[in-house]
Amino acid sequence: MNPLENIRIVLVEPKYGGNIGSVCRAMMNMGVTDLALIGRPEQFDMEEARKLAFHAEEMLNGIQIFQTLEEAVADCTVVAGTSARTGFYRDHAFLPREIAPVLLDSAAHHKTALVFGREDKGLFNNELAVCTHIINIPSSELYRSLNLSHSVMVCCYEIFLLANNPSYEAPAECSPEADGAMRERLYAAWSALMLETGFCEPEKLDHMMLGLRRIFSRGKLTDNDVKILLGLAKQSRWAASMKEREGFSQV
Amino acid sequence: MNPLENIRIVLVEPKYGGNIGSVCRAMMNMGVTDLALIGRPEQFDMEEARKLAFHAEEMLNGIQIFQTLEEAVADCTVVAGTSARTGFYRDHAFLPREIAPVLLDSAAHHKTALVFGREDKGLFNNELAVCTHIINIPSSELYRSLNLSHSVMVCCYEIFLLANNPSYEAPAECSPEADGAMRERLYAAWSALMLETGFCEPEKLDHMMLGLRRIFSRGKLTDNDVKILLGLAKQSRWAASMKEREGFSQV
Repeated sequence: MNPLENIRIVLVEPKYGGNIGSVCRAMMNMGVTDLALIGRPEQFDMEEARKLAFHAEEMLNGIQIFQTLEEAVADCTVVAGTSARTGFYRDHAFLPREIAPVLLDSAAHHKTALVFGREDKGLFNNELAVCTHIINIPSSELYRSLNLSHSVMVCCYEIFLLANNPSYEAPAECSPEADGAMRERLYAAWSALMLETGFCEPEKLDHMMLGLRRIFSRGKLTDNDVKILLGLAKQSRWAASMKEREGFSQV
Repeated sequence: MNPLENIRIVLVEPKYGGNIGSVCRAMMNMGVTDLALIGRPEQFDMEEARKLAFHAEEMLNGIQIFQTLEEAVADCTVVAGTSARTGFYRDHAFLPREIAPVLLDSAAHHKTALVFGREDKGLFNNELAVCTHIINIPSSELYRSLNLSHSVMVCCYEIFLLANNPSYEAPAECSPEADGAMRERLYAAWSALMLETGFCEPEKLDHMMLGLRRIFSRGKLTDNDVKILLGLAKQSRWAASMKEREGFSQV
């Protein structure tokens, strides 16, 4: 299988239909064909998209629309989100050229997502939290923010070049990697653990979980890793609840 | 001086104002600000361009419009034209990543041009002839032809990355390089020589000159090189004209 077929481009609430069309064309130019949109179907101007797709219109028919980013990447192992800003948990950001082998290695065996935010506001923190990696496209201080389809083009161009580099070798698969859905189960269990044990206050949970997600995203998480971590959370919650009862009984 | 300021993007007869605007934005994102258009001023929809430039509108005010490509690159030493097709004299084409150091080295001391053709027909042969280098942006067999602003983005992105690479070192200048105007004088003299000596028939001159231009573009041509070559052409034409007179006198 061609790994480029495992690359999914996800656009979160794109405002302009023209950008959706331009993205289709850029993707097809670079051999990438799986496009997902996040939002309500009626908010996308597909007529405008059709005009700009220009010979890539057929791709528009294959677009999947999801309500949430979690759903769109539930079957993806690596999920890389683009961010123009730096700062909180964005300092581990990759350049497009650095992330290309990570994405292509992953796409050899798994669905792999590249996520792009709104034209004006980018990705929100809770959306970046769903990503395993963050990409920062280098740009001039003159004008930092790239057009949506240009961002997609730069990222797909780097992946396409690598995929067509004769010296690139796809990895043999060792153990199955956890996908988005499985990772979200893990994070839900750990969130519960943090609250129930009083490790952190509810209003600080989001911030804490962002940190935890970054830590777990530094390396690959296999299905087995997630099972162990899930088990640990479950057991700790059980033990904590026992302790709590003891506490109560001692009162 | 920042070498990116010596990079001139030249668009030959762009059809859609929106593309001009998108190109402005892509350029500014990558720190490149010198834009020239070839055509008649009234054929460009600058209103549409303004909409798509999106925070790069100020660049629109600095655009220079030329009637011919030769005029637009008269002060440029390296002139790289993009072509989607392969074939006649296009097999020496460079990838954007390969050409980036050539362009940036040149831009350290000279005006340097990157030329992009019409949305539908690209650059004509007589325009490619003015170029010292040809760039071929790799793309999928699914759909070869990139949107104009995407092509500009990919090329500028490669140059911007290199310019910001700490290990890149700009070359010290040795001898002044010939610019477009000087090269055109040379080619005009050699064309005349070829015709006057009967080396080639008028209808084959264009084809022959394309080949000659490619040969001279493989390395750098300094001002001195061009002076020697010009002198040789001049002397040969003079000798040939003498010979001709002798021939006539012998009849």
